Amino acid sequence: MINLKDDERLDYLLAENLRIIQSPSVFAFSLDAVLLARFVYVPIQKGNIIDLCSGNGVIPLFLSTRTKGNIIGVEIQERLFDMAQRSIEFNGLQDRLKMIHGDIKEMPKQLGYGKFDVITCNPPYFITPKKEEINLNEHLAIARHEIHCTLEDAVKVSSQLVKQGGKVAFVHRPGRFIDLITLMRMYRLEPKRIQFIYPKAGKEANTVLVEAIKDGNPDLKILPPLIVYNEKDEYTPELREILYGE
Amino acid sequence: MINLKDDERLDYLLAENLRIIQSPSVFAFSLDAVLLARFVYVPIQKGNIIDLCSGNGVIPLFLSTRTKGNIIGVEIQERLFDMAQRSIEFNGLQDRLKMIHGDIKEMPKQLGYGKFDVITCNPPYFITPKKEEINLNEHLAIARHEIHCTLEDAVKVSSQLVKQGGKVAFVHRPGRFIDLITLMRMYRLEPKRIQFIYPKAGKEANTVLVEAIKDGNPDLKILPPLIVYNEKDEYTPELREILYGE
Repeated sequence: MINLKDDERLDYLLAENLRIIQSPSVFAFSLDAVLLARFVYVPIQKGNIIDLCSGNGVIPLFLSTRTKGNIIGVEIQERLFDMAQRSIEFNGLQDRLKMIHGDIKEMPKQLGYGKFDVITCNPPYFITPKKEEINLNEHLAIARHEIHCTLEDAVKVSSQLVKQGGKVAFVHRPGRFIDLITLMRMYRLEPKRIQFIYPKAGKEANTVLVEAIKDGNPDLKILPPLIVYNEKDEYTPELREILYGE
Repeated sequence: MINLKDDERLDYLLAENLRIIQSPSVFAFSLDAVLLARFVYVPIQKGNIIDLCSGNGVIPLFLSTRTKGNIIGVEIQERLFDMAQRSIEFNGLQDRLKMIHGDIKEMPKQLGYGKFDVITCNPPYFITPKKEEINLNEHLAIARHEIHCTLEDAVKVSSQLVKQGGKVAFVHRPGRFIDLITLMRMYRLEPKRIQFIYPKAGKEANTVLVEAIKDGNPDLKILPPLIVYNEKDEYTPELREILYGE
């Protein structure tokens, strides 16, 4: 049995044989998290992976289907940390998935420098707005705005946590893409694989996936574009493959 | 009449009612130059435009069909400068197209700082190799390798020549994309429009177009992907439109 609180739901994690606790008023995972979890390189048999700004744990849960390694998720909001932890237990994954309730900026000191093979991060997308403009729902505001964690914090902490030669993958909006790339270089993370996501053919990209290597040589690949919807507003075959394994 | 030298040919400039002098052993324009000339914003009625590393003048010639403004091309190789100048005369465009034979690094002092509305540049793509590896054909070597002009030179000079709020557009390979973006920010050129060119659907990009604004606000758009060939190795409809106006 599972203990669901308030308006929480136990959703299926798409094609995976996994369930995830979500709540429309607190947090529900986005397509971006799924795309990042499918995009990033992961070692199959073992390794140490950490997901920053983990929310309800969607990326660790997803990654658990791609690797037998150990995965840590870090989430600052206790309510989301608690949802993630209950989802991990419900799926019986507590032997290799672990959530930490804390600030990502404390993690290098807490977990050690250069100890991780792979870092993932789906950071808050929006620069902190003025108090009167901020989302009145505090849970959503913290998840979406750079209140506890700026993009620079997330990139810097990733660089501190990852091994030399290890991988760091971020998802973000094109509007912050130049900032992201510039910060990665500043913190010795060399972008190596980039993929742009376009909502429809003929439209501008609305999402970008970047994978960098700590102290890697400059040698970037731009992967084929990924289009989400066809002209009938249905998922394209590539996206159905990603989402449902069809 | 036109005076063609050695193995020069008088080619049609695609759909345009223009001819261009080319030579397989000295210089022939590439698709990249055409894509850049179609991609960049240009003021229609007037304005001052400068094309750096101009080769046989393909970009100034192309741009002359999109704007009534004045266009300067700068080329360091006398042989190419001479080809460009004869093409301009053959097309009767000498009243508003002008070639300068010189080093782009001298242009800010020679032409003035912050005087241009638009700068274009299809720079040499390859970092200067060892002497023994360099292309034995000096004309092709200078056009393709960073012998007289590094990417940083080209970005720095562009930033010096362009007005505040003016536009700077480059074409390059994805392998140098992060360098290009980082250098642009370093020289106060904020990337605003980026388009990736893919040789075929499902393949990695092989070319990138970037337009930046001097002292612009960060607000990047990633344009729809451009695919060059279909599965039968014919130009796609979008590319035929760009090349032949079909």
